[in-house]
Amino acid sequence: MHAVHYTGNRSFTVGPGTAVPPGLNEVRLDVAYAGICGTDLHIFHGAMDRRVQTPCVIGHEMAGTVAEVGPGVSGLAVGNKVVVRPLDSRGETPADRGHSHICRHLKFMGIDSPGAFQSSWTVPAFAVHKLPAAVDLQTGALAEPLAVACHDVRLGAVRAGELAVVIGGGPIGLLVALVARHAGARVLVAEVGAFRLEFARALGFEAWDPTTMDLPARVREMSGGSGADIVFEVSGARSAVLGMTDLLAIRGRIVLVAIHPQPVEVNLFQFFWKELRLAGARVYEREDYEEAIRLMASGALPLTRLVTAVRPLTELPAVMAELETDPRAVKVLLDCQR
Amino acid sequence: MHAVHYTGNRSFTVGPGTAVPPGLNEVRLDVAYAGICGTDLHIFHGAMDRRVQTPCVIGHEMAGTVAEVGPGVSGLAVGNKVVVRPLDSRGETPADRGHSHICRHLKFMGIDSPGAFQSSWTVPAFAVHKLPAAVDLQTGALAEPLAVACHDVRLGAVRAGELAVVIGGGPIGLLVALVARHAGARVLVAEVGAFRLEFARALGFEAWDPTTMDLPARVREMSGGSGADIVFEVSGARSAVLGMTDLLAIRGRIVLVAIHPQPVEVNLFQFFWKELRLAGARVYEREDYEEAIRLMASGALPLTRLVTAVRPLTELPAVMAELETDPRAVKVLLDCQR
Repeated sequence: MHAVHYTGNRSFTVGPGTAVPPGLNEVRLDVAYAGICGTDLHIFHGAMDRRVQTPCVIGHEMAGTVAEVGPGVSGLAVGNKVVVRPLDSRGETPADRGHSHICRHLKFMGIDSPGAFQSSWTVPAFAVHKLPAAVDLQTGALAEPLAVACHDVRLGAVRAGELAVVIGGGPIGLLVALVARHAGARVLVAEVGAFRLEFARALGFEAWDPTTMDLPARVREMSGGSGADIVFEVSGARSAVLGMTDLLAIRGRIVLVAIHPQPVEVNLFQFFWKELRLAGARVYEREDYEEAIRLMASGALPLTRLVTAVRPLTELPAVMAELETDPRAVKVLLDCQR
Repeated sequence: MHAVHYTGNRSFTVGPGTAVPPGLNEVRLDVAYAGICGTDLHIFHGAMDRRVQTPCVIGHEMAGTVAEVGPGVSGLAVGNKVVVRPLDSRGETPADRGHSHICRHLKFMGIDSPGAFQSSWTVPAFAVHKLPAAVDLQTGALAEPLAVACHDVRLGAVRAGELAVVIGGGPIGLLVALVARHAGARVLVAEVGAFRLEFARALGFEAWDPTTMDLPARVREMSGGSGADIVFEVSGARSAVLGMTDLLAIRGRIVLVAIHPQPVEVNLFQFFWKELRLAGARVYEREDYEEAIRLMASGALPLTRLVTAVRPLTELPAVMAELETDPRAVKVLLDCQR
């Protein structure tokens, strides 16, 4: 049993961990693969030090197998391949209006409680989804970000034949693009990084750097002059927010996926003039995980092509440092048994 | 036949007009009463000089009677009490996706073509809605702004029992508040002007100046801690836009009614965190006019209480100047036969 602990100050320590025996309604998992999320990088950068209590094990994208089943658990057995939906909504109150996935007292596993960057992880059974046999554990480790994309596309109500623009070609942007294309949309990816631009094109997307060409003109050209039906803002860039309204048709929709910590200028005149709609999207609901697992099992999406490296968990400190400078990383998985 | 012409440079001239004989599919109306809209004030201030061709007759809120029926018109007869939905969507194209009320080549009567500030107005028959006998012509003159409010409340999908905050207590804000209350919402009005604050209270609304009290706290208090279900931003104030997200519950909705000519800072973090939704709303559709007329006929709303003055059309230049300085005006009607 080993684990990586975030100890604050841009530091991780690699060492022995503690296999926690599963309590009532809990299961202990052997973590096979864990993905590194942008949030993990934020934590590494110290941006979430007020929320994260150190030392702690972070990480919330994973797939693994059930190693031990606690009392009270039904429907799970040792050896089951599983993924974790890392939301603990037990603090939900009526004032949350039933939206448990974003309730005010939500605890996010891997941020507010121990996470997946360890060889053995004990979690509440309600957070566990079983994987079908057809899904291998590397693909399964993409369930969490894929569920984000499923949530975004569902909230955006993407319909077949629509034109969607995904602003931002990182892992979430590409997953949104893949899910939207699977839903029948024509998808254009806007991305400023040269490597990610080519990566998106290799996945079959028309992709452009909006700083070097007239993206609104291209979108009009692709839509008989009307503009895009939907924009996914996944970049977090202020310029993207200011420009997104220019891409849309009358009654076009925006799904806001990126986190903008500070207030950002929005062209509200365009919202008025074209009756645009904007919806914020955060994490996922149970049905989004179920959809993500269905999509993984179907093999319809080239998910493992997003995995640009698989590294031993023990190399996490080095991997984190590399991710800061290497633009060629898309999704890096950690092999948590090594 | 007399008319008031806007001649640019903050000037109106009062004088004889030209009664235009109705052509194919047109009707000529005797204008009974015309309301003054914020847009008319913008035109007076020169803010729309690039769009308005001078000299021209402006005005687009009115009620009157059919004076003459052109060839091809059916369903309208001399003497009918009517109102005009001042949208000319004949330039609509497929790229407008069927949203004719905000199509790219929309012409707005009273801005892009002659308007209602004259004793006789000739309009296309498609723009005319008949008034039931129960609706008097002063009430009827409120059909246009009331249809705006019906559109806003419809796009906001207000449901009975919801808590709505209307930011801005001018004529449109008050009409939105009245229509939302009629739809079963509890309505709180936020307004900074002392007269309008009292005016809203006299209409039975809880109303507060958000600069002198903690409005988010009051909204939480009224909603068991969760926040408002819906906010209507009708003020056009930058501070209102920045603060509106603090008023809302998880999955709360914003209807953007006000025109913000410049980009404005929005707290997109709150959109993400609470999965908020924003919808721009502009003018109205046919069904909103029909709903407005039903509401007027029902007598359910105290509409004429919004009419703070009725003045002869010939006094328009003086009325416009007064409106700039008098905070006690809500809706001023012009008697267009005088």
